[in-house]
Amino acid sequence: MPKDQGLPERLADQIIQLILEEGLAQGDRLPNEAVLVERLGAGRSSVREAVKLLQSRNIVRVRQGSGTYVASNPGVVDDPLGFTFIDDKRRLTHDLLEVRFMIEPEMARMAAEHATDEQAARITELCNESERLAEAGEDYSEADTEFHSAVAQASGNLVVPRLMPILKASVPLFIDVTGRQLVAETIRTHRGVADAIAAHDGTAAHDAMYLHLVYNRNAIAQLAARDA
Amino acid sequence: MPKDQGLPERLADQIIQLILEEGLAQGDRLPNEAVLVERLGAGRSSVREAVKLLQSRNIVRVRQGSGTYVASNPGVVDDPLGFTFIDDKRRLTHDLLEVRFMIEPEMARMAAEHATDEQAARITELCNESERLAEAGEDYSEADTEFHSAVAQASGNLVVPRLMPILKASVPLFIDVTGRQLVAETIRTHRGVADAIAAHDGTAAHDAMYLHLVYNRNAIAQLAARDA
Repeated sequence: MPKDQGLPERLADQIIQLILEEGLAQGDRLPNEAVLVERLGAGRSSVREAVKLLQSRNIVRVRQGSGTYVASNPGVVDDPLGFTFIDDKRRLTHDLLEVRFMIEPEMARMAAEHATDEQAARITELCNESERLAEAGEDYSEADTEFHSAVAQASGNLVVPRLMPILKASVPLFIDVTGRQLVAETIRTHRGVADAIAAHDGTAAHDAMYLHLVYNRNAIAQLAARDA
Repeated sequence: MPKDQGLPERLADQIIQLILEEGLAQGDRLPNEAVLVERLGAGRSSVREAVKLLQSRNIVRVRQGSGTYVASNPGVVDDPLGFTFIDDKRRLTHDLLEVRFMIEPEMARMAAEHATDEQAARITELCNESERLAEAGEDYSEADTEFHSAVAQASGNLVVPRLMPILKASVPLFIDVTGRQLVAETIRTHRGVADAIAAHDGTAAHDAMYLHLVYNRNAIAQLAARDA
């Protein structure tokens, strides 16, 4: 936020403090507008504008006729790293893959070491679902994204799942760029990751995820060579 | 953004399209309000509200009496991953360090391989500045953050510098948590990173950055043991 804040920006910061102080979690309801007006000592229209600012930053979610709630993953906006504003999408795809190599094999190792039985079962289930969709020739990008998010959650690290919006930007991009040629490899390496996590084998999970990314890198390199 | 968008949200999306279509870059001036009103076919107050939403998402920057400009790093907000909403700051510090281990040694290697002479000189300069401030007993956290950002820029990867807000959250946290005991180690390992980048020695840059993080991890582990 810029330093020269207006009243609605300052009220928005006060509402964030209120959420933190009262320990409100995802999905919890905020005090209603009349209560906020009284507690913040501000006018109704300024409070309303502050709530709109918080909604645009995905901190709260206004449900018409019901009230204002703490958003899920509060403060994590769509496209948090501003990829919309990067023109060169091919270079972005390449550079995102470089970052995935840094994070995901290690994340898979951590998931194998820390996953609960429920988390491991969920990962296997998402793997099954991707496979079923892919074999039916349907779009499996959402199941694919969810698979990687479930591995991130199981890693036990607080920051890694919040990096998943990066992946969310890149998975449909990869499927788009790499076409359908990677379906078999994706399914097989996902299965390798899921099995290794279920067996709590960190090294096998690391290596299966690494292999998954190598297939992606090769496919992108072939595409680039073809277009050159 | 939620699906059930109001008018200002839709206008905000249209202004983003306009920025992209006209190829406006950081610091470029947007058409003035009257022009936006005409081009978007909407009322002045709705356009004004849309611009405020874009300002809250760090996409534009309104300078009173001057106009509306594309923000620097458009779309990258303060605290893009919502760390404000994580209560357990000690665990956050630990988990951030885990992510830094994944990213920063590899990023230093890439910087050594890709840095221009100007970038290498800037990194050395920031290293000198941190050292001068630390020896004078002054706060060097800003120079430290800038050092890591300059290495990220020099990596040549588009995504890595955008991950630096994560670091920006963690560097003051680390200096705070680790106290002054790490000053000598920080200065020495920064120097190692800077020299290796200037010599285009990727492995040495990787290892110096790794060592830098190991010192941080040890200091945090000692603090945790002391408090246990």
